Amino acid sequence: MSAQHSTTSPGPRSRLRRLPQRGSHETAAIHAILDAGFLAHIGFQVNGQPFVIPTLYGREQNTLFLHGSAASRMLDTLEGGAPACVNVVLVDGLVLARSAFHHSMNYRSVVAFGEARKIAAPERKVEALRVISEHLLAGRWADVRPPSPQELKATAVIEFTIAEASAKVRSGPPMDDEEDYSWPVWAGVLPLALAPQPPVPDPRLAPGIAPPRYALAFRRRT
Amino acid sequence: MSAQHSTTSPGPRSRLRRLPQRGSHETAAIHAILDAGFLAHIGFQVNGQPFVIPTLYGREQNTLFLHGSAASRMLDTLEGGAPACVNVVLVDGLVLARSAFHHSMNYRSVVAFGEARKIAAPERKVEALRVISEHLLAGRWADVRPPSPQELKATAVIEFTIAEASAKVRSGPPMDDEEDYSWPVWAGVLPLALAPQPPVPDPRLAPGIAPPRYALAFRRRT
Repeated sequence: MSAQHSTTSPGPRSRLRRLPQRGSHETAAIHAILDAGFLAHIGFQVNGQPFVIPTLYGREQNTLFLHGSAASRMLDTLEGGAPACVNVVLVDGLVLARSAFHHSMNYRSVVAFGEARKIAAPERKVEALRVISEHLLAGRWADVRPPSPQELKATAVIEFTIAEASAKVRSGPPMDDEEDYSWPVWAGVLPLALAPQPPVPDPRLAPGIAPPRYALAFRRRT
Repeated sequence: MSAQHSTTSPGPRSRLRRLPQRGSHETAAIHAILDAGFLAHIGFQVNGQPFVIPTLYGREQNTLFLHGSAASRMLDTLEGGAPACVNVVLVDGLVLARSAFHHSMNYRSVVAFGEARKIAAPERKVEALRVISEHLLAGRWADVRPPSPQELKATAVIEFTIAEASAKVRSGPPMDDEEDYSWPVWAGVLPLALAPQPPVPDPRLAPGIAPPRYALAFRRRT
């Protein structure tokens, strides 16, 4: 993929050291991957010990919103503006080559660097929570009981502003060494998709309430 | 889940600060999650900057094997024994509650801490690569052209020994506040599964070679 323009000039952290032909600093490519995923892995450190925690997120421009318990160690650490790294990866398939060496994975991945800040104002917190909710399941927010002031107090909300990011994508068939194409084994791609299964109603659901359209229509937006 | 015994005594890094009823230090639970997943997120730091990189892995006892290009920054950093954190998470579903606040995700997650070391001896590298390959797709290794000495040289292989780990699991229906059960909205779980799609043969596949049983049978081992 070619780099046309970028959220920021690629800096030393996001410079693609390997396989630059798989990389992209193009903003649109980065945003498309962030919008297709819903689970991010956040990396941060506490006293030199790295931590990696998975969490849901929402996106608005170059900002990711995260939330969690006000008692969360991750959010405690991040809200002071600690440097952080975010990865979002979509697994698209297993690539089965003839040689062990050329086995691979088809995927779309974004690695983003930046700093996080706590959102304090209750009305901005509600808006960030709405963005996270709508990112995951557009339409749900309007249906549910909104957060109470107490619930808002118990919820930490963080905005992570992307300072540098890069996207990396692999797609297509295996690429074997020329002399291996006669190796007598099946080669190709086993596509993988995160697929919704039929909704399971809460045992306490009142009778006569059907699953909403947005639950039935959930697809990883690819 | 209750903690019965543990890979190691829980230390300060893996102590479950929040929702300890969802946590487990039981070795069997931790290994089961690691065996059901195939993509790990590795957290490490370089000069105070956290990095998070997704990668495939294999497991043997309390050791995870990782591999990549000998030129990879992650493996460069890890092979010197830098402290690292590994997360493996399996997303099982979206939990739709009546209140925004009680929305959640069903998941199984392991966070592990430890140090990584480079594997140098070629025969141990091959064995670790076999473990990674068999973890992903049991049966494939015997079918493919094994790594050449040059390919082995171009491949960095790392063993990450788990020093501390914890598992965290959420399952089941939403748990709403008692007064919200009459809120007139559908509530329940939208299960999600990483599902294999029909294999796509390499355009250069020789005629008459059918996809192997292990590709057709691929399931996230749950």
